[in-house]
Amino acid sequence: MASEKQQKAIDLSHHLSDLSRARLVSPLKGLAKYMGNPNLIALAGGMPHPSYFPFADISASALVPDSFSLESTPRESALSWVWKLFGAGPKEKTTTITVPKFPSHADDINLAVALQYGTAQGIVQLQKFLKEFVAKVYQPAYADFATLVQTGNTDGWSRTVQTLCNPGEIFLTEEWTYPSALYSSLPYNIKPVAVAMDSEGMRADALRKVLSEWDEEARGAKRPHVMYTVPVGQNPSGATMGASRKKAIYDICVEYDVIIVEDDPYYFLQQGQYKARSERSVETVKNDGDIFLHNLAPSYLKFDYQGRVIRLDTFSKYVAPGSRLGWFTCSPLLAERLERQGETTTQAPSGLSQSLITKLLTTWKYDGYVRWLHGLAIEYRTRRDYFIDCLADEFHLAKSATLEQGLWKGCEVHEGSLKPKNSIIMFEKTAIKTKMFSFVPPTSGMFIWMKIHFENYPSFKAGDEATLEMQLWEKLAEAGVLVAPGWYFSAYVGEAPDAGEGHFRISFSNAEFTTMKKAVTIFGDVLRDFFKE
Amino acid sequence: MASEKQQKAIDLSHHLSDLSRARLVSPLKGLAKYMGNPNLIALAGGMPHPSYFPFADISASALVPDSFSLESTPRESALSWVWKLFGAGPKEKTTTITVPKFPSHADDINLAVALQYGTAQGIVQLQKFLKEFVAKVYQPAYADFATLVQTGNTDGWSRTVQTLCNPGEIFLTEEWTYPSALYSSLPYNIKPVAVAMDSEGMRADALRKVLSEWDEEARGAKRPHVMYTVPVGQNPSGATMGASRKKAIYDICVEYDVIIVEDDPYYFLQQGQYKARSERSVETVKNDGDIFLHNLAPSYLKFDYQGRVIRLDTFSKYVAPGSRLGWFTCSPLLAERLERQGETTTQAPSGLSQSLITKLLTTWKYDGYVRWLHGLAIEYRTRRDYFIDCLADEFHLAKSATLEQGLWKGCEVHEGSLKPKNSIIMFEKTAIKTKMFSFVPPTSGMFIWMKIHFENYPSFKAGDEATLEMQLWEKLAEAGVLVAPGWYFSAYVGEAPDAGEGHFRISFSNAEFTTMKKAVTIFGDVLRDFFKE
Repeated sequence: MASEKQQKAIDLSHHLSDLSRARLVSPLKGLAKYMGNPNLIALAGGMPHPSYFPFADISASALVPDSFSLESTPRESALSWVWKLFGAGPKEKTTTITVPKFPSHADDINLAVALQYGTAQGIVQLQKFLKEFVAKVYQPAYADFATLVQTGNTDGWSRTVQTLCNPGEIFLTEEWTYPSALYSSLPYNIKPVAVAMDSEGMRADALRKVLSEWDEEARGAKRPHVMYTVPVGQNPSGATMGASRKKAIYDICVEYDVIIVEDDPYYFLQQGQYKARSERSVETVKNDGDIFLHNLAPSYLKFDYQGRVIRLDTFSKYVAPGSRLGWFTCSPLLAERLERQGETTTQAPSGLSQSLITKLLTTWKYDGYVRWLHGLAIEYRTRRDYFIDCLADEFHLAKSATLEQGLWKGCEVHEGSLKPKNSIIMFEKTAIKTKMFSFVPPTSGMFIWMKIHFENYPSFKAGDEATLEMQLWEKLAEAGVLVAPGWYFSAYVGEAPDAGEGHFRISFSNAEFTTMKKAVTIFGDVLRDFFKE
Repeated sequence: MASEKQQKAIDLSHHLSDLSRARLVSPLKGLAKYMGNPNLIALAGGMPHPSYFPFADISASALVPDSFSLESTPRESALSWVWKLFGAGPKEKTTTITVPKFPSHADDINLAVALQYGTAQGIVQLQKFLKEFVAKVYQPAYADFATLVQTGNTDGWSRTVQTLCNPGEIFLTEEWTYPSALYSSLPYNIKPVAVAMDSEGMRADALRKVLSEWDEEARGAKRPHVMYTVPVGQNPSGATMGASRKKAIYDICVEYDVIIVEDDPYYFLQQGQYKARSERSVETVKNDGDIFLHNLAPSYLKFDYQGRVIRLDTFSKYVAPGSRLGWFTCSPLLAERLERQGETTTQAPSGLSQSLITKLLTTWKYDGYVRWLHGLAIEYRTRRDYFIDCLADEFHLAKSATLEQGLWKGCEVHEGSLKPKNSIIMFEKTAIKTKMFSFVPPTSGMFIWMKIHFENYPSFKAGDEATLEMQLWEKLAEAGVLVAPGWYFSAYVGEAPDAGEGHFRISFSNAEFTTMKKAVTIFGDVLRDFFKE
């Protein structure tokens, strides 16, 4: 890959939408040559004097990077939040970070600058951190990649789809996908075409089939030139794609000239394989950021010698969703167009977010942030394990043989049915030991993607799936547990690809451990009752 | 108006664009009825646990509401910022405000909530403040108006134009206007039609003329149904529109069924008439928020008994541009569509911005915030007066007779020419006492809108204006003063409406007083040199 690194991104400007082409180069671009003059008196913009900003400084009690241990079992810290609510728990270990309006060093993060109108590129200290972070962690295959801030990956994809797609075009995506990605594009009459998945996410053979057999006339649209993909902790399926699959898909995208939009919010929540409680032991992972990062599936950027990847990163899952801060990594040509697109909408992300988070990152430094990410990965592993343990307590979980095809090809599937003691009661009524649901424990992300076996519903008739999915969803909601119904994630807009099965996406990212336990108990009650009907 | 208040906004849904109609009602709207259940366990979203947010609390040293005095002359406080830079000045008077992750009262602003995914409506405490503020200050003419947060008025207008206009449509605006408003719409092939202005901004007779004489065939577009207007401290002209003009324009908009988008960032920077230094005395305005507000030109909302106004407010000019926080006020029907439009782009504004600014506002309370706004209005008056004083020092400023027509109808115009002592030198070379520029002191906002009299340029030929404007602009930039060139603000896209004159927009909002003085001196040198050529 060393020789490819020298290569510059190729010119992919033929992918730009008419809308993006119509955006002018900033008409005041001519100013740039004067802006270098430190004595320049700027009377052009409507900028308030910084003394009129009502904050003299902003501060935060920031958690330390090793707030979460690398030990991987449910434990006190996971429960500590409840205690804190009642003022009884141990205090979080924090340090104070401050961003002053008038810092003593010119290079320091400056609130007067962060609160002023800025370019859509964001504050310079953040630009610097992100560029270095991307270079070290994702290792793009070409040298002159660009990073550009945005206000979260929904904004990121929304800007991207408008920059690349004309109304009437179709983009490639996984058969199950992030709903907001669809709702960002559908009103513009830009629709998805679903590509079949397996346990690693999008299938390379299925992608080639869609592209090679594309019938422009039958489809009413030219062959797709944009792909939207969530390759790690895929939303909603939880699938994670390894290096060889990514290389195969990248090569197909080169062959068919497709831009890959890699939406990767869960990248650092790669948790490893689930082990049943009985097979698990307390283990403390070595605190070594390089090893942690090395064990992660690579980004598409690592294969991107042509600059055809637009990667979307967000701080939503690692700092907070309310930060509304994330960034693009892509070729300079695409970054310039995305910046223009941002100038007439969000402008720059909030200066309060930018400055506080940059101060946090530069205080923690690169190593500290990687340690923080590592701690979170272990936390989410613990949450996943705990949630599945709860399912194992509530249901009889049996492992299937390795599947030969479908979404879970190559996996052992956990199949949930009644526990023996309950079965006895059931058997009296239905004389069926019902397989009610199945799932594969995710290796990344925040969600269990659960198939509900409606074919085992007593009065089931083919075609009932959608209705039953919503009926069961509603019964759960009425019983006090809210999950996400599967239809919401379907990229077969208006079609039903998956006869005989419904799905729920269940999140283990947010609830307290005791609450997760309670939710699974309610889930058990509702499910048993439902399958009895 | 009391009886109109009872009236609800009428249904104006026929104004929605195809894009806006295509946006679904949020597909998870069905959730709403369950969200009222305080015991509901939410496992639907990808929300991180709040203990994973690395901020235990955020704080700010917030200025007190009366930081700026109501005394109206240049004085120490205006210069104090420079001193502070060197650590020598008096300290700003501040109080500490804090937003904790785990507040002790359930109704308190909660960082765990502000940093979580939220609705595009923003945090509830902010919603409450804005609703009350709008009701008290702008007094909308109908009862069930809605407010909705956005990330600044550029986002606000961008969302509005996509919600109301289809590609190919034309909207009404002032002949000189905010460039970003054009750059947000032009790539979508949504173009402006310029309406002639006078000293109050858009002319009612000119508006009626455009609408009544609209020739759909000749224009290639249906009659405009949307107006974009900056009615106070108009950008760039500085014009401010009073109540009777607004009422007249509103009535025409009712007659022709036009939606008014009132972009009003400078509303609280209404400064009153400029008086020459010799006529000015130090005056301290009474600290009475009611009187301050009562003397401001009313918002279009006050006449809006039909709900056809979308008002855009921003904290950019009163807190900080980097807050990226503002709000819409409009009918519930339009607010719902604007919210959907926001969900697929920015989602909610930054939770750090929302929570800190809400904490500031609820600490200051309504009266404190009005006092802050009043103080800023006086600050900007002082800045305007000082900048014009500098011009009076550098040039001979003569007042014209009241103009009968044009942009400055009904105004006395200040005309700038050489000071006598310099004139002697000039007379030897050119034998002309040149009128070089003219302007009307603005009564609101941040800008001087200056005509440059290129017809008095020695080798002037008709048609040279655009070239000369850029030549002079470049000479100024090279000499170290950056102003905004007039062509940039023209709503006659691609046309030249204003033969024989060029313009500069010059901002007095940001520079230090000593720097403004220096800038005007440089301006004088460059201008004298230019008109000698």
